[in-house]
Amino acid sequence: MAPSNQLEVPQKSRVTVVGSGNWGSVAAKLIAFNTLHINSFHDEVRMWVFEETLPSGENLSDVINRTNENVKYLPGIKLPKNVVADPDIEHAVRDANMLVFVTPHQFMEGICKRLVGKIREDAVAISLIKGMEVKREGPCMISSLISEILGISCCVLMGANIANEIAVEKFSEATVGYRENKEIAEKWVQLFNTPYFMVSAVQDVEGVELCGTLKNVVALAAGFVDGLEMGNNTKAAIMRIGLREMKALSKLLFPSVKDNTFFESCGVADLITTCLGGRNRRCADAFARNGGKRSFDELEAEMLQGQKLQGVSTAKEVYEVLSHRGWLELFPLFTTVHEICSGRLAPSAIVEYTEHSARLPLLESPVHLN
Amino acid sequence: MAPSNQLEVPQKSRVTVVGSGNWGSVAAKLIAFNTLHINSFHDEVRMWVFEETLPSGENLSDVINRTNENVKYLPGIKLPKNVVADPDIEHAVRDANMLVFVTPHQFMEGICKRLVGKIREDAVAISLIKGMEVKREGPCMISSLISEILGISCCVLMGANIANEIAVEKFSEATVGYRENKEIAEKWVQLFNTPYFMVSAVQDVEGVELCGTLKNVVALAAGFVDGLEMGNNTKAAIMRIGLREMKALSKLLFPSVKDNTFFESCGVADLITTCLGGRNRRCADAFARNGGKRSFDELEAEMLQGQKLQGVSTAKEVYEVLSHRGWLELFPLFTTVHEICSGRLAPSAIVEYTEHSARLPLLESPVHLN
Repeated sequence: MAPSNQLEVPQKSRVTVVGSGNWGSVAAKLIAFNTLHINSFHDEVRMWVFEETLPSGENLSDVINRTNENVKYLPGIKLPKNVVADPDIEHAVRDANMLVFVTPHQFMEGICKRLVGKIREDAVAISLIKGMEVKREGPCMISSLISEILGISCCVLMGANIANEIAVEKFSEATVGYRENKEIAEKWVQLFNTPYFMVSAVQDVEGVELCGTLKNVVALAAGFVDGLEMGNNTKAAIMRIGLREMKALSKLLFPSVKDNTFFESCGVADLITTCLGGRNRRCADAFARNGGKRSFDELEAEMLQGQKLQGVSTAKEVYEVLSHRGWLELFPLFTTVHEICSGRLAPSAIVEYTEHSARLPLLESPVHLN
Repeated sequence: MAPSNQLEVPQKSRVTVVGSGNWGSVAAKLIAFNTLHINSFHDEVRMWVFEETLPSGENLSDVINRTNENVKYLPGIKLPKNVVADPDIEHAVRDANMLVFVTPHQFMEGICKRLVGKIREDAVAISLIKGMEVKREGPCMISSLISEILGISCCVLMGANIANEIAVEKFSEATVGYRENKEIAEKWVQLFNTPYFMVSAVQDVEGVELCGTLKNVVALAAGFVDGLEMGNNTKAAIMRIGLREMKALSKLLFPSVKDNTFFESCGVADLITTCLGGRNRRCADAFARNGGKRSFDELEAEMLQGQKLQGVSTAKEVYEVLSHRGWLELFPLFTTVHEICSGRLAPSAIVEYTEHSARLPLLESPVHLN
């Protein structure tokens, strides 16, 4: 006879959002809606807040908890009352078995190291962090960093996700990338999915994560085309070639990457959003209009009020990988973008051709890249 | 010993462009550049001109031949001197073994019937005609129409091809779709490819051709989103879902259709161009801004100076196919676009969701559609 303690009540999952910027606050809003409605999650969602003192003298975390609003990073949007801001990171993660990482990527290594030994043994993670360093040997995936330092499974969530548009519940989509465990992926989908934020999962963590970084390089190319006023036709061609290079590079670096990932929100849709709006596109447009005579640093300072461009440094890092591996000629768009950013070529080089050949599709991709 | 007549000199190919509108004239320009430079083509390119009397009293064909300019449909652009306008269609095609069809699609059946028995036995064709009728049983492919009536092989060429931008040699791409014979496809690529117009071939004539028609339905959806000022995020999601439905419907209708075709210029790039600029997008934007209270007929007359929208009729035809086959629920975007165009739903329905479900990704595509 089975003793009664074998009929365990499944424990409710507890979620903590590590980060409380613009996207982190929107993520907390999405999640908190679901934890209230779905029985398998504990209602309360902790949100770790990097504490700041507001001009009023109050702590940001206190104001969030009193007003249900992140007055600094997501003003005007009410967060569900079950979001609890917590300035103590160790306390915030202590009871959680689902950790959502959404901080600037350069802080992640430090945060992970600080959390070693401080999280539950059954914890799993997801990274919403777009952009990563690409080292000479290859990209330094944020999901791997989390997995390796904390010894836990880590999925990623990427997509065409302009935080402020999702905050006001405009229709949008996202993609969860997972490595092996489909059940965990489905749980993340359940946690994020709402009628206005449609999430689907693909078994391709690297493909999904690389999209979030490489798209910024393509957005620079799209910005050059806009600045040169080449029109929609040329811009679409550049975006398509960029998507092809994103796919080809991801597959060369990680043979498990799947073609269909690039049809998901993390691929083609995020690329479109980034190449239509987006900081990288905007600054590259200005760069081209100035004939490359004003540096990206200067334009960034002037146009972005302290926000940072990722495309320029990613383009440089990607160039180093391509050069190191002897792949420069296979990736004419990525290569040309860096050569323009670094001043070696004029912005017009992005669409230049001679009587005999186009610069961009210099070489057809070998069959195994298609 | 081999008799000397076995060492045949390969005959040079002779090209005729059937059509001389905006895109036809640009195609003749591209082709004539190549026939001059590539030895396997006869220099002269015939272009059939549907004769018109210009206000000056002269014939359009005479003016084209005197000035090397299609003053009516491509003013300001010099055509290579080896383009010869010919108002007599039978005479124009008589010596050609490569026929390029580029006329409005509603004229194609009549033109083909007129050419029966008038063309060379070794002739092959390519269609540059975007848009087709979609009958209840399925689409009426222009390439099949040409093949069936004339009994010859027919490829297609589609892509993000705004004629006026290519005319001034802005960088662009296109896709040739072929059925079986790769050598013929390569010859078409050779004929069209220039440094500023990069052409590649895929063995998927239906996939390539359907892209050119179905994109117009997605462009209407994108126009509604623009008119409702939903932002780039939502627009990118709608474009992605549209691309998914284009792919899924093409594959259901023709199981030979390949996923990768949708990564080519005919797929994602043409979709981008059409959803950024494009007549369908523009009129749908105005339709949504007017809350659906002014009809597409009225907007078309006011905004397009006699040009015609294809998206609205294609959306209706696609709806009939979906309804006939019981597939309406699998294609929520295509279905909703028609319901909006026909006044059954408000434009805002394109992005509507209830507390429990989104309208658009109503059903996840079954596995065989992915």
